Amino acid sequence: MDLRKFVRDIPDFPQKGVLFRDITPLLKDEEAFEFAVKEMSKPFKEEKIDIVVGIEARGLILAAPIAFYIGAGFVPIRKPGKLPWKTQRKEYELEYGMAILEIHEDAINKNDRVLIVDDVLATGGTAKAAADLVEQLGGEVVGFDFLIELIDFKAKEILKKYTLFSLLKL
Amino acid sequence: MDLRKFVRDIPDFPQKGVLFRDITPLLKDEEAFEFAVKEMSKPFKEEKIDIVVGIEARGLILAAPIAFYIGAGFVPIRKPGKLPWKTQRKEYELEYGMAILEIHEDAINKNDRVLIVDDVLATGGTAKAAADLVEQLGGEVVGFDFLIELIDFKAKEILKKYTLFSLLKL
Repeated sequence: MDLRKFVRDIPDFPQKGVLFRDITPLLKDEEAFEFAVKEMSKPFKEEKIDIVVGIEARGLILAAPIAFYIGAGFVPIRKPGKLPWKTQRKEYELEYGMAILEIHEDAINKNDRVLIVDDVLATGGTAKAAADLVEQLGGEVVGFDFLIELIDFKAKEILKKYTLFSLLKL
Repeated sequence: MDLRKFVRDIPDFPQKGVLFRDITPLLKDEEAFEFAVKEMSKPFKEEKIDIVVGIEARGLILAAPIAFYIGAGFVPIRKPGKLPWKTQRKEYELEYGMAILEIHEDAINKNDRVLIVDDVLATGGTAKAAADLVEQLGGEVVGFDFLIELIDFKAKEILKKYTLFSLLKL
């Protein structure tokens, strides 16, 4: 199934010069959505994953059904101030300024096997911050799982010690 | 399965006087998460749902696996400025001030049968705004599906013309 036609390009969003990949046409098509979740699950289905982590906001939409499908628990990594209980936080660099992500302190048990899911891999900065949070809590990052990899960004360097899967390369 | 023990009460979050129901312990438990998704899907599995709508942010986490499980497409309703394409918006009252929700203009087709999912039903204001957006686009709201209903709030009045399911009443 060719998923490319379900990805809509939006120039200058969220800011000038950025070409945003809008996956909502894919999500609303029941066959494309089911296909994407199953294909993203396939490389990790036999990996005895304990926890699938989704990164706010679009990562949540893919991580939750993958967790459900492979029989794992689900954990959100969110922007600061959104998680209600005790958190650990990680500050990291974006192309334009700094960002912060948070995870609940009890979200991961020591030696949990963790899969990290997001919609798009660009610079890899967000993904690396998520991995740092999982590892701070004693979890093992079994891999990263993306719907789309933007190959221009060469994120593989920053994530080179990890197993990385992406369904669509743009 | 008793899901109550997986819901953590957080006093004074996000603001003083509010008792927040934290569902992250439920989500991270693979059995509780699977049970919740399947039980929330059950009343609507045979209803020929075309689209499951999830309301940002925690609604996305439940709506996406329900859509996957019942074989429907998924559509996010989000806070203003988050959706990248053309949107319709709905302003509505909260207990404290106003809020706005947005949906993509092409998210729902005329006569689509739509299920709206969120984590918690309190006043019903957010749920009603989501239904208004779906109906503005020509969709039919087949029902609302909540993980938790806070029965003190009497939201059923504002949603009385709709079918409403909630898994946990607190």
